[in-house]
Amino acid sequence: MVIIMKPKVSSEAIEHVTRLIEENGLQVHLSHGHEVTIIGVVGDKRKLKGTNFELLDGVDKVVPITESYKLVNKKFHPEDSCISVKNTVIGPETFTVMAGPCAIENHDQLLLCAENVKKAGATFLRGGAFKPRTSPYSFQGLEEEGLKYMEEAGRTTGLATVCEVTSLRALAMAVKYVDMLQIGARNMQNFELLKEAGRSGLPVMLKRGLAATIDEWLNAAEYIISEGNPNIVLCERGIRTYETATRNTLDISAVPVIRTKSHLPVIIDPSHAAGIRSFVEPLSKASAAVGADGLMIEVHPCPSCALSDGPQSLTFEQFKQLMGDLSPYIALAKRNI
Amino acid sequence: MVIIMKPKVSSEAIEHVTRLIEENGLQVHLSHGHEVTIIGVVGDKRKLKGTNFELLDGVDKVVPITESYKLVNKKFHPEDSCISVKNTVIGPETFTVMAGPCAIENHDQLLLCAENVKKAGATFLRGGAFKPRTSPYSFQGLEEEGLKYMEEAGRTTGLATVCEVTSLRALAMAVKYVDMLQIGARNMQNFELLKEAGRSGLPVMLKRGLAATIDEWLNAAEYIISEGNPNIVLCERGIRTYETATRNTLDISAVPVIRTKSHLPVIIDPSHAAGIRSFVEPLSKASAAVGADGLMIEVHPCPSCALSDGPQSLTFEQFKQLMGDLSPYIALAKRNI
Amino acid sequence: MVIIMKPKVSSEAIEHVTRLIEENGLQVHLSHGHEVTIIGVVGDKRKLKGTNFELLDGVDKVVPITESYKLVNKKFHPEDSCISVKNTVIGPETFTVMAGPCAIENHDQLLLCAENVKKAGATFLRGGAFKPRTSPYSFQGLEEEGLKYMEEAGRTTGLATVCEVTSLRALAMAVKYVDMLQIGARNMQNFELLKEAGRSGLPVMLKRGLAATIDEWLNAAEYIISEGNPNIVLCERGIRTYETATRNTLDISAVPVIRTKSHLPVIIDPSHAAGIRSFVEPLSKASAAVGADGLMIEVHPCPSCALSDGPQSLTFEQFKQLMGDLSPYIALAKRNI
Amino acid sequence: MVIIMKPKVSSEAIEHVTRLIEENGLQVHLSHGHEVTIIGVVGDKRKLKGTNFELLDGVDKVVPITESYKLVNKKFHPEDSCISVKNTVIGPETFTVMAGPCAIENHDQLLLCAENVKKAGATFLRGGAFKPRTSPYSFQGLEEEGLKYMEEAGRTTGLATVCEVTSLRALAMAVKYVDMLQIGARNMQNFELLKEAGRSGLPVMLKRGLAATIDEWLNAAEYIISEGNPNIVLCERGIRTYETATRNTLDISAVPVIRTKSHLPVIIDPSHAAGIRSFVEPLSKASAAVGADGLMIEVHPCPSCALSDGPQSLTFEQFKQLMGDLSPYIALAKRNI
Repeated sequence: MVIIMKPKVSSEAIEHVTRLIEENGLQVHLSHGHEVTIIGVVGDKRKLKGTNFELLDGVDKVVPITESYKLVNKKFHPEDSCISVKNTVIGPETFTVMAGPCAIENHDQLLLCAENVKKAGATFLRGGAFKPRTSPYSFQGLEEEGLKYMEEAGRTTGLATVCEVTSLRALAMAVKYVDMLQIGARNMQNFELLKEAGRSGLPVMLKRGLAATIDEWLNAAEYIISEGNPNIVLCERGIRTYETATRNTLDISAVPVIRTKSHLPVIIDPSHAAGIRSFVEPLSKASAAVGADGLMIEVHPCPSCALSDGPQSLTFEQFKQLMGDLSPYIALAKRNI
Repeated sequence: MVIIMKPKVSSEAIEHVTRLIEENGLQVHLSHGHEVTIIGVVGDKRKLKGTNFELLDGVDKVVPITESYKLVNKKFHPEDSCISVKNTVIGPETFTVMAGPCAIENHDQLLLCAENVKKAGATFLRGGAFKPRTSPYSFQGLEEEGLKYMEEAGRTTGLATVCEVTSLRALAMAVKYVDMLQIGARNMQNFELLKEAGRSGLPVMLKRGLAATIDEWLNAAEYIISEGNPNIVLCERGIRTYETATRNTLDISAVPVIRTKSHLPVIIDPSHAAGIRSFVEPLSKASAAVGADGLMIEVHPCPSCALSDGPQSLTFEQFKQLMGDLSPYIALAKRNI
Repeated sequence: MVIIMKPKVSSEAIEHVTRLIEENGLQVHLSHGHEVTIIGVVGDKRKLKGTNFELLDGVDKVVPITESYKLVNKKFHPEDSCISVKNTVIGPETFTVMAGPCAIENHDQLLLCAENVKKAGATFLRGGAFKPRTSPYSFQGLEEEGLKYMEEAGRTTGLATVCEVTSLRALAMAVKYVDMLQIGARNMQNFELLKEAGRSGLPVMLKRGLAATIDEWLNAAEYIISEGNPNIVLCERGIRTYETATRNTLDISAVPVIRTKSHLPVIIDPSHAAGIRSFVEPLSKASAAVGADGLMIEVHPCPSCALSDGPQSLTFEQFKQLMGDLSPYIALAKRNI
Repeated sequence: MVIIMKPKVSSEAIEHVTRLIEENGLQVHLSHGHEVTIIGVVGDKRKLKGTNFELLDGVDKVVPITESYKLVNKKFHPEDSCISVKNTVIGPETFTVMAGPCAIENHDQLLLCAENVKKAGATFLRGGAFKPRTSPYSFQGLEEEGLKYMEEAGRTTGLATVCEVTSLRALAMAVKYVDMLQIGARNMQNFELLKEAGRSGLPVMLKRGLAATIDEWLNAAEYIISEGNPNIVLCERGIRTYETATRNTLDISAVPVIRTKSHLPVIIDPSHAAGIRSFVEPLSKASAAVGADGLMIEVHPCPSCALSDGPQSLTFEQFKQLMGDLSPYIALAKRNI
């Protein structure tokens, strides 16, 4: 931590700040510049909890130097993580494709999806049993009934299964049926849910919040890992910007940024990012090329009748085509599907 | 709902769309323009659930006409609402000031705050017992112990009390001790929590999400009201933008926008919006002038030692000064405190 | 400037950085922390032009300490500036209202506006002769003809006049007819235009760019002042965000932020910020209450037939009403109109 | 254009609106819905210039149906354009790489860059002679001297040359020396400059504004094409968002969005988007994969001593490596370099 003093500050103000730091058992490094004095704080800054230097006389600003996330930080864990789920691995040598409907609507819809995405080469089945919807009058999900279909689909096809949980109650239900929990964008800072996911024993896919910075996202992951669960996969799904031509703005740079900051795998959800079906293919290719560890894609037997997010869902035929088109890009990235 | 067709679309495509609308029991109004054909849909569009017109052949885009929120919509409830909490009323004739510490740290801190904000003219005590914090290593709140102090402070001073709830568990605890629940920005789309708040019987203060549109915010309020609870106060607390000179960007225009869209009262939290103590006073005056129904302000006996959000908290002396400075603005707005 | 090294960096890397700094005639202050080493740079950092420390081995990041704007910086010029234009002054003791049509459409429209805004209490006439329009097919302004009407209107009413200039050619024309130049949001970083405005001898109103940070805005002002022209008034007119309920998002906090960073006056343009006529009145009151030095407001004899920005323009009657409603707020702010 | 009336509006209000439309020579289509009445306007809406329906009694909102850009609109020119510059073509069958220094610093730096980027496979030399810089105290470019070096470099290597112009003066100079003009992000809505570029006879590369929507960008291109110059290449260079981990947020989805809206080629500038050298390679691969028509990349003989944008510049060695790594992606996209 570095404390920057105002120009022409009194020596009393500087002494007051330095004394406060030293009283808390930390060391001070003073730099008297031409315009301003800078006070470097050396030591474990958690000892300073409850000391707000910004408010002290003569202080201009406080600049943090080290990140607040530790266990997910690449600086302290340089090797990339591999996350095992069922009989698959998500990590630097694989390209994992998760596919399925936005919402589970009924038994046959889900089983049909499972067979078809399996046939086309996906290794995960996605499907929502608890749907966070902007309006209370939209379809909210089949809940436990949907989870049972997920369990059946996973069993019969061999696909690993992932399902979003939107509350502790949903989480308690889901752990009985699925292989991986998903924390959605709207719950990225639902800290109670994050902690419970950390205690669940299941791997967790953590989507980026609608307007979360990458640092906030990694701090959210830190909530999960600090409960003892290192099996976390990050998922970029677009952020909110002023541009309305797409549903969200896919922040594809998040992939290389995460590579420099964390050892966790990161996949991309082009369906939610774009919100428009025809953009899923180019964005999927770009995701493979940029170095993502996989994709999450919405597929539906009849997108034009889907109860949720139809406009961004692929038909089975389109998904099969996509998987074929993707394969040379996956090969170029030296990954196995 | 209006469906805009692509230029030079075939008459088959138009017929297909119109047939689908009519088969669902709705009416069609066709307008053949020079460049494009427009199809107006007349009737209750909820009958069309699961029909994604965007995906049909020849459709360019779909423009919704009516809002998805109904019970909080001013169009169907033109009179402004008054919300009663304990012995106070929040609404068009009052200017309600809620004040207190960001986090409840101990018994004496809270009781001291309560006395001082009461003396200065506040009618609500705020205080966090459950703290949503970006990092898992930051102070997370006293939970039930804090709620007990809130109950005591409310009893001894007569202040109404409001406390953020971050989970169903927190909510179940809080209803036993406080007068009003707060749903924070990070939980604005925690729909399970919204519904439970709707069933709680207590009035609810709903903060705007970090990057929520006003329409999404009103849809979140619709979740509460649709469970039978019309006692909702909205709270604007700044939105996320690219500007970093303030913690968030206070969207002060949200107050007149809400006035045109909803009958619910709306207050402003300048402390979280600015994140810097010295901006609280000018933003509070602006809030009174723009027509807000009140303020939520952070106050602490010793901001420089606060465990949470110290830099934006006022001292007792500063708060007293603020209340004095505000009173002519409140009088100009023809409101009582 | 502070250079933060990566954890476990070699001592050679540290020496390389420090040697480079010292070779440029600056001093180094080293702080060896538990996790990282920090290198403080003392002296005039302009000597380091063309040395990109970010790229040197072992460097994690570079944190600037001092602002790049100097002449508009409050740190080096603590007293608030007063800008004289014709027979008026813009500064801490006045509240300046500039009003008039978005675009000058013809002689009578402008003269009628001038009389009416004068009668209602404005001291400046605004009016666009060069209109930057998103589409090339929209009305682009009367150019020199419009400027002549401005000159006549200023002469007959005694109002000071302000007109946007969008190019060097427009600027060269405008200096012959008006009292103050306006640089619009789209040209805030048209640096050639800024420099020419700095050499023009006329006071300049500099609008904030559509997505400019406050620091970029002050750097734009530095372009003008560094050419020898200190007569600059800043104008906040809303920034671009994801919210679409208003045309832009008025960043009202910019006023107190500017007060801490610069000595220049700052006014607010609620018409462009909101884009909707009915929001102009509440936002104008809020602007007076937050401490702005004035307002710029669009007025039109017949808003529903205006060639530009009609939806946000007030009628004469509405403007007169607004000025009456504002006067107690201006009095409270201890300012004269 | 569709006009949506408020609920329970009087029939007089509806008649007033329809009469106004018909008096302007257009036709009306009325749809009386259950909640609201919708008025469709059929005909050339430019006849309605100066009629602001938003302000009429009973009108809720006005929804435009057709885009304001025409000549760059894919709807009216479905075939993708090919732009010829010197002996190269930019379009659907090629992948054009433009490379060179951010700023031209001296003769040898530019000539060295030209040789090296040519050797590595680029077909365009980029280099800034007029530098728009946030601070007036930063290096502003060599101007005509720099242009002469560009001319020489283009002549000796055979590379096509592109240079940003920031004013009419710069444009008048540049046309004498370079093969293609660049309009930078800060000048995307410098409409005078756009028109002059349209009249210049040279092909134009138009960068997206810092916070421009895709529609505003296409309208800016319409300014150029409506002066008779159809030789326009769009360049996505990142937009401003709240995320600070990269300099801007690369909106990679802009490529497929442009494909649906316009026939103009679109390239990507990953150097400015990321602002960090190590992200250029993954973003370049993603650009090829997403279907872009090329790249603009910053290269410098010694990035750590560059006078502008060093941190995002590649060395010659890194650029050569990048071109090698890119070639299978370009082949996959079925394009020639």
